[in-house]
Amino acid sequence: MPEKIIPDIVVGRLPIYLRALQRMLEENRRVTSSQELGERLGISAAQIRKDLSQFGEFGKQGTGYSIEFLADQIKKILHVDQVWDMAVIGAGDIGSAVARYQGFANRGLRVAMIFDNDPSKVGSQVGPFTVKDIKTIKDSVREAGIKVAMIATPSQTAQEVAEELVSSGVRAILNYAPINLNVPEDVKVQYIDPVIHLQRMTYYL
Amino acid sequence: MPEKIIPDIVVGRLPIYLRALQRMLEENRRVTSSQELGERLGISAAQIRKDLSQFGEFGKQGTGYSIEFLADQIKKILHVDQVWDMAVIGAGDIGSAVARYQGFANRGLRVAMIFDNDPSKVGSQVGPFTVKDIKTIKDSVREAGIKVAMIATPSQTAQEVAEELVSSGVRAILNYAPINLNVPEDVKVQYIDPVIHLQRMTYYL
Repeated sequence: MPEKIIPDIVVGRLPIYLRALQRMLEENRRVTSSQELGERLGISAAQIRKDLSQFGEFGKQGTGYSIEFLADQIKKILHVDQVWDMAVIGAGDIGSAVARYQGFANRGLRVAMIFDNDPSKVGSQVGPFTVKDIKTIKDSVREAGIKVAMIATPSQTAQEVAEELVSSGVRAILNYAPINLNVPEDVKVQYIDPVIHLQRMTYYL
Repeated sequence: MPEKIIPDIVVGRLPIYLRALQRMLEENRRVTSSQELGERLGISAAQIRKDLSQFGEFGKQGTGYSIEFLADQIKKILHVDQVWDMAVIGAGDIGSAVARYQGFANRGLRVAMIFDNDPSKVGSQVGPFTVKDIKTIKDSVREAGIKVAMIATPSQTAQEVAEELVSSGVRAILNYAPINLNVPEDVKVQYIDPVIHLQRMTYYL
């Protein structure tokens, strides 16, 4: 496939398609169509066909998509045909919930370690992990070659932690702290703040 | 202000502006500009001015925005100048973390009750809440006049729970279960699935 710039909004829909396809596989389904996918997802069939066509030819007119083949292709495109080890920073309620979360399995991601700066938490157990001292981020993360991290610290420490992670080789950060991070342009950041989603809905109430 | 249709993408940026303004207020700041806001958020100043102009005149050319005034106006627009009581369904790791989350304060939202279907959890304590039996959703939610809910159940039960909530008067659902929900058109749904965010970033790694 030739390298071309795909709009990030299109990239952002691929994980949603992949999730739906993986659910169909769990339902022992074999073939689907852009119409069916669209109905499940509330996205038009034309949009789905257009998005997928940016990456290649995945189905035949009239016969639909092989679910397994299409899921495998999207996994390759998103680079989740491998498993990415992740570091979680912050062993509070959110960080602990994320570290124990079962939903990463089979989706190309795995929590590998969790850190906190609270001496009473360091050394304690969170699911299968022993909480590491935040002071050891640089060594642990670099040594493990970790590229993906989740920040679940209070807002005040999130920027500092982000800089530490970036200088340790992290290139993708999912930030649960309700604050915008300043990172170099080649580092990706995504945000999860339930209030942002909720306020987007209260507008309509 | 006359009623006009504002694109949802614009509505979606208002909570991000509000969060930045509230942080400036915590820093005892009084005045800001679209330039400064833009730099903090990685959004162009022109975009911010254009978004805000859809709702009215909030600043004067050359003198910038009064942070407190602009924050108050955005709160009114998003209807978070009041406090919305929320129901949380599912008292697992994520639901419990959300129920105990301190980040809702001053942002127009408040957890009011939490439900689970597991007899060993019903009656137990999660932060300040006693977990209620999921069978009592309809009565409790309707009686309290709750319009906003968060679903943090396993995927298999999320759709059923959503239908129960909608028939109890809920009009906005934040869904943590990794599955798309089918709800009537007048009900808003937003999704939080960390994998979706993470896979959007692994594409670039």
